[in-house]
Amino acid sequence: MTTIAAPPAPAVLPPAHERFFAAGHDQVVDEHDAVLWDVLRGLTQGGKRFRPALLVHLHAALGGQDAHVAAAVADAVELLHTAFVIHDDVIDGDEVRRGRPNVGGTFAARGLADGATPERARRYGEAAGILAGDLALAGAVREIALCGARPDVTVRLLDLLEEVLHRSAAGELADVRVSLGGRVTLADALDVAEWKTAAYSFELPLQAAAILADAPEDVVAALGAVGRCLGVAFQLQDDLDGVFGTAEQTGKDPLCDLREGKSTALITIARSSSRWAQLAPFVGDPDLTEDGARRARELLVACGARRAVEALVHDLRGAAVAGVDRLPEPARRTLLDMITVLLGAPVPAPQAATPERGAA
Amino acid sequence: MTTIAAPPAPAVLPPAHERFFAAGHDQVVDEHDAVLWDVLRGLTQGGKRFRPALLVHLHAALGGQDAHVAAAVADAVELLHTAFVIHDDVIDGDEVRRGRPNVGGTFAARGLADGATPERARRYGEAAGILAGDLALAGAVREIALCGARPDVTVRLLDLLEEVLHRSAAGELADVRVSLGGRVTLADALDVAEWKTAAYSFELPLQAAAILADAPEDVVAALGAVGRCLGVAFQLQDDLDGVFGTAEQTGKDPLCDLREGKSTALITIARSSSRWAQLAPFVGDPDLTEDGARRARELLVACGARRAVEALVHDLRGAAVAGVDRLPEPARRTLLDMITVLLGAPVPAPQAATPERGAA
Repeated sequence: MTTIAAPPAPAVLPPAHERFFAAGHDQVVDEHDAVLWDVLRGLTQGGKRFRPALLVHLHAALGGQDAHVAAAVADAVELLHTAFVIHDDVIDGDEVRRGRPNVGGTFAARGLADGATPERARRYGEAAGILAGDLALAGAVREIALCGARPDVTVRLLDLLEEVLHRSAAGELADVRVSLGGRVTLADALDVAEWKTAAYSFELPLQAAAILADAPEDVVAALGAVGRCLGVAFQLQDDLDGVFGTAEQTGKDPLCDLREGKSTALITIARSSSRWAQLAPFVGDPDLTEDGARRARELLVACGARRAVEALVHDLRGAAVAGVDRLPEPARRTLLDMITVLLGAPVPAPQAATPERGAA
Repeated sequence: MTTIAAPPAPAVLPPAHERFFAAGHDQVVDEHDAVLWDVLRGLTQGGKRFRPALLVHLHAALGGQDAHVAAAVADAVELLHTAFVIHDDVIDGDEVRRGRPNVGGTFAARGLADGATPERARRYGEAAGILAGDLALAGAVREIALCGARPDVTVRLLDLLEEVLHRSAAGELADVRVSLGGRVTLADALDVAEWKTAAYSFELPLQAAAILADAPEDVVAALGAVGRCLGVAFQLQDDLDGVFGTAEQTGKDPLCDLREGKSTALITIARSSSRWAQLAPFVGDPDLTEDGARRARELLVACGARRAVEALVHDLRGAAVAGVDRLPEPARRTLLDMITVLLGAPVPAPQAATPERGAA
């Protein structure tokens, strides 16, 4: 719902991205390959860029000296995000991103224009998405390997990246699994948020900033815990915004999340309430109307699920802030400001944190 | 059809792979993630391992001193191959590899067992394949970045890897595109063979060996050309073996390639012959019988396509050998021996190299 203020999305690509795309374009072998690179480049422009912002600002606030090295690693984190977004779209079967055709949508359309059947065109689009994500992923690992830090620091960054990649893959797999139709607990939904979102979007940039700034080990460890809490809170807030936010606030169709019916923490909590029988027909209904969505929101409030998730966000934010409070200034102030940008200004804890339970 | 003699597939994983999988298993977050790593590990065992063999033997023959560094890069090349095989299977919709369920097949079966619909289970398998390939790809880039070579050598290897990745992605995309149903020329089929196969399977290990051995620039450049010729010849021979070889020779169903109906060079040449009307019903027929396959083979011989491809293999092999002849001994001898292992003993040029043409 909020956009991070600084640094703004750059008008030109940052240097590491510039090199990555220059190499890609220089080595293009045919017109289709050229389109692949153009679409990939388009996907790295715009967006909130809060991941590189977290890294660059925290690095400076922790006394880090090599701003250009931090900027290169920050670019790599953003490129990794692009890779994940592209592969996530393939996995979810989405062909649109931010209102425009994504890699898969672009190539599926090209396949159709060339006379392919819709099914073959769809698979062509999927292939292009897998390959574009591979290029971005390999580019991100390369950018970290060649970021220009001391060799021992680079090895630590690559170790951190490896661990984060492992958890992200497990989180994405779990995210697909929870949609298979089996029983999903709140713990499952929180695990997915931690592995899939918190690890690469928060733990990675925060800990990388500390490693690059030669911060003490306890600071690196504290930032891991801060990143986990902050990342899960961010994902839960995103789940809330996806249902209760407006298109102006979130930049996406406010019916989209309900229609998809994803087993978020919000929905998982609602599922264990006595109102679920009333709510269930609306969740995952691809033809959900504006009226249906209004009713679903009312039920999500009435069953206590909204308030329960707000309470979780509040508590996780509190845990993150407690971790941040142990950082030296000005890192403490910098990170608190960024938490406000990411999660909004602090609010009092919601009154009733316990959701209404089902009769069972 | 041939298997490379040395080094044999190791009973234990090589050191760089050992570290990669140890880290993966150490960081497993749940049982599903554990299965992902088990399947990925299984896929890196067995196989011909000719790519690492090319690198390690040529490196030694060029006077390279750091055998352990060459071994680490060779392992990375094999891990890259694993990543490509996994993503290729996702792109082709294959759930079996070497007679066993691959990543996608394993997870689709797990999804079904958990009560998912076949379509959701298939998509779960696809997600697992995309993620396992991502882990292997990132692991391969990391292994090259941390191979232990001099920093300038490591940068050159990463540049080579980047260029090869770009061409491989373009080749895979082109390979999917030629199956969309449009008109495919022999030049298209040869481009796909060069970009998709020759680049990472031959140019990469041969040029990496030379870079690691501090070989002169003209040797590195010559090995690029050798790798392209050898790689395309290898792919064309593989296309021939896929149609004319036995299950004992190729390790796969001898009807498989005909049933799939892929636009290989062999089929592309046949398509421009006057026999194509007779041949066309057999190519891409998923229910092709033993008798139908026999008839298809007869027609592929009669129209001159087999001989034309054999002539191409012969000429490309000749071009590769001419390049190898400019290498210093013992590298020249070593590489000539490996060409014999990969393509069989040299044979005289096929008599009629020009295929029969259609009336048009």
